[in-house]
Amino acid sequence: MSNVQKVQDFMEVIKSRRSVRYYDSSVKISREEMTEMLEEATLAPSSVNMQPWRFVVIESPEAKAKLLPLAKFNGNQVQTSSAVVAVFGDLRFTDYAHEIFDKAVELGYMPRDVKEQQLAAYLPLFDAMPVDTKRDSVLIDAGLVSMQFMLVARAHGYDTNPIGGYEKDRIAEAFGLDPERNVPVMLISIGKAEKAGHSSARLNVERTTEWR
Amino acid sequence: MSNVQKVQDFMEVIKSRRSVRYYDSSVKISREEMTEMLEEATLAPSSVNMQPWRFVVIESPEAKAKLLPLAKFNGNQVQTSSAVVAVFGDLRFTDYAHEIFDKAVELGYMPRDVKEQQLAAYLPLFDAMPVDTKRDSVLIDAGLVSMQFMLVARAHGYDTNPIGGYEKDRIAEAFGLDPERNVPVMLISIGKAEKAGHSSARLNVERTTEWR
Repeated sequence: MSNVQKVQDFMEVIKSRRSVRYYDSSVKISREEMTEMLEEATLAPSSVNMQPWRFVVIESPEAKAKLLPLAKFNGNQVQTSSAVVAVFGDLRFTDYAHEIFDKAVELGYMPRDVKEQQLAAYLPLFDAMPVDTKRDSVLIDAGLVSMQFMLVARAHGYDTNPIGGYEKDRIAEAFGLDPERNVPVMLISIGKAEKAGHSSARLNVERTTEWR
Repeated sequence: MSNVQKVQDFMEVIKSRRSVRYYDSSVKISREEMTEMLEEATLAPSSVNMQPWRFVVIESPEAKAKLLPLAKFNGNQVQTSSAVVAVFGDLRFTDYAHEIFDKAVELGYMPRDVKEQQLAAYLPLFDAMPVDTKRDSVLIDAGLVSMQFMLVARAHGYDTNPIGGYEKDRIAEAFGLDPERNVPVMLISIGKAEKAGHSSARLNVERTTEWR
C-alpha cells in the first residue's frame, strides 16, 4: 500500500473527492486504519452529541457476497472495493446517553452536575419525541458523519462512493442489526481508485441560495 | 478581518472544529467569501447529483431580528454571529435536473446522449417515489453539504454551530420559502469565535461499529 498517497491540504481533499466506482481490488485497508478513519469521522457533531450513527464494515468475501444482491446496480463497488461501510441511524440513541456524558465527565470536559442537569433536561424531550422527528434527526446526523468519513478517506489517500440505490429494507437484518431500531442511510464503498471518478457539475450558488 | 486565521491542514480542520456559540460580532463575512464557501461546500455529493440543498443566508439585522424568536435557546448564536445559514432540503429537486445535466454537458463532463439516457431513467423513478422516501433522501444529502460547509468554514478561519433546536415548522415561511417544498434541516451559525467551543467526548469506535 506504499502507493496510496495521503492528502494533507484541506482544499485539495474537498476538490479531489469524486465518486469512484472501480477500485484496485488488491488493496486492503487494515482494521487499524479503518478504525482510525472512523475515529476521525466521528469527530463530526450530532444533535446533543448523541452520535446516533452506526456502522457495519463489510470487508470479508463472505459478507460482500451477502451484500452483492442487495446492492442492485452497484456491484462493481462491492466487488472491487476494500470494504463497504453500511451507515445506519439508531432510533434508540438515548441508550448511549449516560455512557457519552460519563465519558465527558471522566475526560474533564464537563462537571458531573452539568451532566446530570443536561440529561435531566434532554432525556424526557427525546422520550416524548415522535419517531418521525427522531428519524429526521438521525438521518441528518448520519449524513454529517458520512460526509466527514468520505473526506477523511480522501485524506488517507482512498476514494469512496456514497450509494443510495440498494435494498434498504433488507440491509439491517442481513447483517444482524435490528431493522426496527436501525434506519438505513447509505452504503459507502472505499478503496484505492483504479478508474478515476467523473467530474460533475454543480448549480451556481445563486440558484440554491437566498440572502436576507 | 486580518486576524481570521485560515487552516490549510485537513486533520487540523477536523480536529479544531468545535461548536462555537459566542462570536466576535464586529466580524462580518463578505458576500463574496460566503459565496466562495458555499461553492466549496456544494462540491459535496448528492443522490444522482440532484443537489437538493437550499440555503438562506440570514445576515442583515432585520433578518436576524426575525430569526431570533424562532431560534429558541440559541439566541447568542443569532445575535453575535456574522450570519446564520438556514439549510433546507427541496422535495422538488427534479425541477433542477435538466439545468444540472445540461451544465455537465456544456462543461464536457458528460455526452449529451448519456444525459438523455440518465434523465430518462431517473426522472420517472423520482416521480414515482413516495414523498417520505424523497424526504429521507434530501435530509441525508443536506446533512452531507452541512458537514462540508462547517469544515470549509473552519478552513477559512471561522467557526460554526449546527443548531437543531429551532421552530422548524415556521422557518421556511418566515423567510419566504414554500414550506410544502422545503424541509428544514438545521441552522448553522458562522463567525469568528469569541469564546472557544467545549471539547466533547466520542463513543469508542467499537461501540458504534460492527465488522463483517
